[in-house]
Amino acid sequence: MADGGEGTARALVDATGGSMRAVPVHDPLGRPVEGHFGLLADGTTAVVETAEASGLALLEAKERNPLIASSYGTGELMLAAVRSGAKRIIVGLGGSATNDAGAGLLQALGVRLLDKNGNDLAHGGAALANLTTIDISTMDPALKNVAITAACDVTNPLTGPTGASAVFGPQKGASKDDVATLDAALAHFAQVIDSQLGVAVNDVPGAGAAGGIGAALKGFLNAEFRPGIAIVIEQSGLDAAAQWADVVFTGEGSIDFQTKFGKTPAGVAETAKRHGKPVIAVAGHIGTGIDELHEVGIDAVFGIAPGAASLSELLADAAANVTRTTEQIVRTLQL
Amino acid sequence: MADGGEGTARALVDATGGSMRAVPVHDPLGRPVEGHFGLLADGTTAVVETAEASGLALLEAKERNPLIASSYGTGELMLAAVRSGAKRIIVGLGGSATNDAGAGLLQALGVRLLDKNGNDLAHGGAALANLTTIDISTMDPALKNVAITAACDVTNPLTGPTGASAVFGPQKGASKDDVATLDAALAHFAQVIDSQLGVAVNDVPGAGAAGGIGAALKGFLNAEFRPGIAIVIEQSGLDAAAQWADVVFTGEGSIDFQTKFGKTPAGVAETAKRHGKPVIAVAGHIGTGIDELHEVGIDAVFGIAPGAASLSELLADAAANVTRTTEQIVRTLQL
Repeated sequence: MADGGEGTARALVDATGGSMRAVPVHDPLGRPVEGHFGLLADGTTAVVETAEASGLALLEAKERNPLIASSYGTGELMLAAVRSGAKRIIVGLGGSATNDAGAGLLQALGVRLLDKNGNDLAHGGAALANLTTIDISTMDPALKNVAITAACDVTNPLTGPTGASAVFGPQKGASKDDVATLDAALAHFAQVIDSQLGVAVNDVPGAGAAGGIGAALKGFLNAEFRPGIAIVIEQSGLDAAAQWADVVFTGEGSIDFQTKFGKTPAGVAETAKRHGKPVIAVAGHIGTGIDELHEVGIDAVFGIAPGAASLSELLADAAANVTRTTEQIVRTLQL
Repeated sequence: MADGGEGTARALVDATGGSMRAVPVHDPLGRPVEGHFGLLADGTTAVVETAEASGLALLEAKERNPLIASSYGTGELMLAAVRSGAKRIIVGLGGSATNDAGAGLLQALGVRLLDKNGNDLAHGGAALANLTTIDISTMDPALKNVAITAACDVTNPLTGPTGASAVFGPQKGASKDDVATLDAALAHFAQVIDSQLGVAVNDVPGAGAAGGIGAALKGFLNAEFRPGIAIVIEQSGLDAAAQWADVVFTGEGSIDFQTKFGKTPAGVAETAKRHGKPVIAVAGHIGTGIDELHEVGIDAVFGIAPGAASLSELLADAAANVTRTTEQIVRTLQL
């Protein structure tokens, strides 16, 4: 299971029996890298994560620069998914190094973003200040019949004090001045979208997700926005499995009271409880307030650590520790 | 619960509602220390541990010297127990720094051990080589009507290759030469006991326990020898509690396959299983082979560590970790 964040494509591929596909793409600074998307067992549903080709993990700390970082690679992954037969793309929003409102993503799909001289904009959020004309006639026609679902767990608008630049810019390397520059550039982008395409994206909840990729998916691709865990539960077949199961196990690397706020185990528990099934969570680390998890349907929580150990030791033995702990839980359930 | 080793007096006092009594005694090197014994709720059963007044923990590493270390303090504790009203003394054998075959213990009880000149022997196992005469007429008469039960988990004879000196001497600081000296001295002691008291103690299983204190308890006080866990189970009322309980919890600092060899959780499980009750163990550390514990009636084993942590962190949070884990187990049992 996953919650729509990083690892969701792999989790859904594992759950459905689909496959991961490798694609040559460009990272946030335009360098060639190998990216991956998941094609689920139905052959028509793809899962693309913004963290994959446009993620912070692709950059050294000193390379972070949301003024110029581009979401182009995420667009390349979406295009590759369509060319593999996808009729529906789930885009997991989060973990991006970009603050370009999905401009790069749109460019990869063929949309032209032009300045007053008719030249294509440079990559990155800052260049959007120079946008004069949007040409969607050049968008790859294969995208026409593809449904986009955005896995989105935030409700931030595109701009303003709770917008992409102000809230998520700093962790991507934006200075205070950069935030102001980017916020103004993205606001201008929203105005041009509104005036030329007739779509008001700025205040759509989630438009500010993934450096504003939410806005692009909404404004250009009519994406449906849903909480990540809801999408994963639907796609993974958890509901049917919970109906069949005697007991439902879930888990998290580190579990504490915050888990109840839409994280994977909480979503699993909600689904299981609809069918009246017991839910037990195992975790590498148990934090504070697990009493609160019982209230959201997680009946019991067990740590898997066998004793005094470092994090690296626990990570190395994670599979064996999960196996041992789960066996002991099942033995207890049978008493 | 305990298994007859260190902590048994406290465990039985806690289980029965008795009290710990402080007594001024002498440590293995004759220095005054405060020792303790347990007087159980019946007011007539006392628990004395050899580790308490004659234990290795009382000495610095460099002070260890089984040639001269004396079990005198253990005898003082026994005498104090009798004077407090004890009609039965459980002596927990183990953890001693001594190798004097209980000579010091006997001296504390009034027995005279004399050399060929009629002088009392010096303290320690080596001096037993000079023993000529045993005078038991001077033993404190209060000991006459006291039943002694030795909690003993080893079957070593007093002397020889599996005797007290050879097997336990080195960990108490005995060199190879010391072992030979002590083994000969103890063999001489056994011969004198045999010829003057008509009791053959040397080959009694457990005579070699606690540096040979087993031999003294057998030869002079007609002690009954029983496994520690059996005594603790009997005294703690575990059998009645297990009959009443829905589920029996036990635990150990570090649990692994060796636990099945007479350690506390194995004894608890045996008792619980006589009444058909589920048994669950919690432990600070889970080692290898816990599958083998299921075979001896421990139905499930859970670690209490909440994640990556040092031993000292786990020790500091032990109570909270046991509480949390046990609550989760009970929640699971109720599913």
